[in-house]
Amino acid sequence: MPPHITPHPHRITKTERSALKGHRPAALWFTGLSGSGKSTIANAVEQRLVEHHRAHTYLLDGDNLRTGLNRDLGFGEEARRENIRRFGAVARLFVDSGLIVLAALISPFQQERDSVRALFAPGEFIEVFVDCPLDLCETRDPKGLYQKARTGEIPQFTGISSPYERPQHPEVILDSGALTVDTCADVVLAFLLEQGLLNPKR
Amino acid sequence: MPPHITPHPHRITKTERSALKGHRPAALWFTGLSGSGKSTIANAVEQRLVEHHRAHTYLLDGDNLRTGLNRDLGFGEEARRENIRRFGAVARLFVDSGLIVLAALISPFQQERDSVRALFAPGEFIEVFVDCPLDLCETRDPKGLYQKARTGEIPQFTGISSPYERPQHPEVILDSGALTVDTCADVVLAFLLEQGLLNPKR
Repeated sequence: MPPHITPHPHRITKTERSALKGHRPAALWFTGLSGSGKSTIANAVEQRLVEHHRAHTYLLDGDNLRTGLNRDLGFGEEARRENIRRFGAVARLFVDSGLIVLAALISPFQQERDSVRALFAPGEFIEVFVDCPLDLCETRDPKGLYQKARTGEIPQFTGISSPYERPQHPEVILDSGALTVDTCADVVLAFLLEQGLLNPKR
Repeated sequence: MPPHITPHPHRITKTERSALKGHRPAALWFTGLSGSGKSTIANAVEQRLVEHHRAHTYLLDGDNLRTGLNRDLGFGEEARRENIRRFGAVARLFVDSGLIVLAALISPFQQERDSVRALFAPGEFIEVFVDCPLDLCETRDPKGLYQKARTGEIPQFTGISSPYERPQHPEVILDSGALTVDTCADVVLAFLLEQGLLNPKR
């Protein structure tokens, strides 16, 4: 903690906030290669959470955060680390506010994902590994990024010129190369229900 | 916007989220000298919003954000500017998520407060000037910071060795040197009700 800082006690607590909602706050962290389907699946999960469980949710994703809070960051190693750190810190604020927050970003390194996990209470951080084979992601290439990575136009691109470390103990693994988006979302919802995080479906 | 970034459309919108709540999302931005009562008043406002209006709120304050998202920032001019920029960006995310967010931080410069205001739709950003005379703040000195500023232990301290620019067109002015915390909170609540931001009291 920097000097001269005395944390100010907040009188409305996380417990009180989530009592208003009926679901437990949590961070769903979607990690995987570019083009693996992280944002698409996170969107489908969010849609179900809101429509079927009246959960209060918010989606943080790499592209959107990059245009606001993280617009000062580039794509070098240091900047990518800081990008993930800020995602984690913001996700924690949202969990503290009582929401279910969904974060979708490549986050290729185990150590950084673990640092984010360490910000949360046990059971609050749910690592969802969107596991799609590289060749399939590269074939999809929805934003043409792999092509630019192959020509060297984009340096340090995860999967091509920079490693992706597969999660060691993710809470959920989605074989998004074989399963539909709907099925992937169902798998995540089933996990959340099993963990007692949601209101019963209605 | 950095290159290679394609914003991903979020399918659950701010309008849908706030329809779930019954109040309109907004950012209440409490600005004023250290010791003017920003955090204390913001806490009292939050308490009323939750208890009387079942609003979903979240409080961002300088000290607390400094221990998480902004813990990499020091107290130089550049770092303080970045501190405020990040507060604004995070407040915007919370408003986008449908909450009423309260931010309490000195934010001494008009230009920076205006940059934050520019992130929001008209009517969403409410600048609350907590207007307490410097000598009274210095007498209170709840954290002993003015004393350290006077001895030079803390450089560039707002009001002592760095200017505070009074807000030019704040939505609310609170004479916190003369009014009680409760009265200040009532004034803010009355403004929000007048603006149609809240559910009726129950």
